[in-house]
Amino acid sequence: MNEQTEYSDGDLRNTGMSLKHDREWDYELDRIVEAVEERDASKVGLQFPEGLKRRGPDVADDLRELLDDDVTIMLSGQPCYGACDLDTFMMRRTDVFVHFGHSPMKESEKIIYVPLFSNVDVMPIMEEAKAELADPDDDPDVGLVTTAQHMNRFGDMADWLEERGYEVHTRRGDERLTHEGQVLGCNYASADVDADQILYVGGGKFHPLGLAMEHPDKNVIIADPVNNVVTIADTEKFMKQRYATVHKAMDAETFGVIFCTKIGQGRMEIAEKILDSNDNAYLITMDEVTPDRLRNFGFDAYVNTGCPRITTDDGPQFHKPMLTPGEYQIAVGNKPLNELSFDTFHGTW
Amino acid sequence: MNEQTEYSDGDLRNTGMSLKHDREWDYELDRIVEAVEERDASKVGLQFPEGLKRRGPDVADDLRELLDDDVTIMLSGQPCYGACDLDTFMMRRTDVFVHFGHSPMKESEKIIYVPLFSNVDVMPIMEEAKAELADPDDDPDVGLVTTAQHMNRFGDMADWLEERGYEVHTRRGDERLTHEGQVLGCNYASADVDADQILYVGGGKFHPLGLAMEHPDKNVIIADPVNNVVTIADTEKFMKQRYATVHKAMDAETFGVIFCTKIGQGRMEIAEKILDSNDNAYLITMDEVTPDRLRNFGFDAYVNTGCPRITTDDGPQFHKPMLTPGEYQIAVGNKPLNELSFDTFHGTW
Repeated sequence: MNEQTEYSDGDLRNTGMSLKHDREWDYELDRIVEAVEERDASKVGLQFPEGLKRRGPDVADDLRELLDDDVTIMLSGQPCYGACDLDTFMMRRTDVFVHFGHSPMKESEKIIYVPLFSNVDVMPIMEEAKAELADPDDDPDVGLVTTAQHMNRFGDMADWLEERGYEVHTRRGDERLTHEGQVLGCNYASADVDADQILYVGGGKFHPLGLAMEHPDKNVIIADPVNNVVTIADTEKFMKQRYATVHKAMDAETFGVIFCTKIGQGRMEIAEKILDSNDNAYLITMDEVTPDRLRNFGFDAYVNTGCPRITTDDGPQFHKPMLTPGEYQIAVGNKPLNELSFDTFHGTW
Repeated sequence: MNEQTEYSDGDLRNTGMSLKHDREWDYELDRIVEAVEERDASKVGLQFPEGLKRRGPDVADDLRELLDDDVTIMLSGQPCYGACDLDTFMMRRTDVFVHFGHSPMKESEKIIYVPLFSNVDVMPIMEEAKAELADPDDDPDVGLVTTAQHMNRFGDMADWLEERGYEVHTRRGDERLTHEGQVLGCNYASADVDADQILYVGGGKFHPLGLAMEHPDKNVIIADPVNNVVTIADTEKFMKQRYATVHKAMDAETFGVIFCTKIGQGRMEIAEKILDSNDNAYLITMDEVTPDRLRNFGFDAYVNTGCPRITTDDGPQFHKPMLTPGEYQIAVGNKPLNELSFDTFHGTW
């Protein structure tokens, strides 16, 4: 993250003002009610991402009014930061299970995915972002990506760029991604296009920073309509942190190799490869990978085969070095330091 | 907890010296190896309580030496504070699943429970505790309880008291408890005996404080052989905290009612009773009940139908009042304040 970024007029970061974009979402209650009636469901589970958990009770109230009295509505209290965080207990114990705010990771008749498209207008911030793009006469090629929340405007975004003389390059990354142009925190294959500049339209820096780490050769322009700000993704701080972690792990003798039990995060073959080649590596299975849970193990370093964003974004919070599988190979001397790269996930579950 | 307790000679609390009792445990490797060979197992899961997680790698090493190379050993990274905390993912995905340090909560052919009996000598601290017991000529009746770790010495403890003129009252609480005289953090039915004084022999204050809250009419003497100290259980601080929490919850309008999905903690009928009687109560399902996980819900107060020790011991860490089901009834005015009592669990799973 570029700490030197100057805040321009209208930049809403750190002002609390970005909440003004926190308008009503479309919870698609009709679709839920229809499914409940169709399946004669008596138990309905609702799972919201962390940022929207507070809306749960109101959505439950609205559903209660629309449904029979004997339908029990449950809210998931499990942590939910992404499409991987499906509450499998709730999925098994309810007749209809509604997951809000993420694209499908696992398809099932029982699960209803409600995407929660944002109603924020993206055009003003794209207009601002244009100053950071190369002049179309010099370099017309632009890759365009966004998140699940803004997919409903993706076509408009592409048209807007084309109208201004750009050649827009988009693709659907791989089978992990639901939509063309969509990125996930762990998958930026949609940016694997023939363009040196990528325009990311969406809230926050979480996704564009992953994108810039995965594609260090590309210029990633962030058009953030939620905070009303345009920035360039700068991975320097992250990369320094990763190099420091790898260096520290070079002194480690014992390694805890984490296999994450969440849907979409199991990479047992990678874990087993490490275990087979290192007698001082031990397999740990867990769902939430948190500093607290690892504190009581006495390993010198950890390798996380689960969510790469836990490793890179939460890394400094762990009491011992936390590595991606690729970083582990560097730490034990199997690969040179200059092969350090971002860990990504492909496939679904 | 009595803050005024004077530390006597030899009291090892807060000295770090209690670790000297942290000797080798008997991990019963032979029994594990036998089960692995009998079942031709290729995956073996090991789950340790938090305090013993650090021993996991050594136990894994010892097992590796005793087992075929193609057997994969996994360590559970799930939180483990009690018999309820069975790692159900690991249970499902391994051929032999070993749970160390707790009594069985769920019996299954696949699970091996290794109790990890303590080898600490309990007689010296019982000798000291005698000064806190009534003279046997005045009141010979003593209830005797201990934890799973010291069950192997339970007969000796009873004999020792009998030899000194006491009439020892013991019982197996109910089907939640494996042994006569055993207490769990959530079940003190073993102390439901015809005696005004209960001698608890075991480490720490966690169990005797629960015992004293459940049986406020009894004098609970703590003979702690691990910290080499004798104290009297004092619930005043805990009770004050509970009263304060209930008072605070009296102003609450909305309630999150937590159903814990862990084996042995599901009390749906209690949750449903609250939900049926209060339109401002909402059902939340989750496994680990932690302050972080509830922070994003906007409820004014919470009712925990899961582990009562989360509510009483971790209560102050939650940002909103966290109540037991009984405390909820007081907070909403269904019961008088003087009916505040300790929440206990009966039955298994």
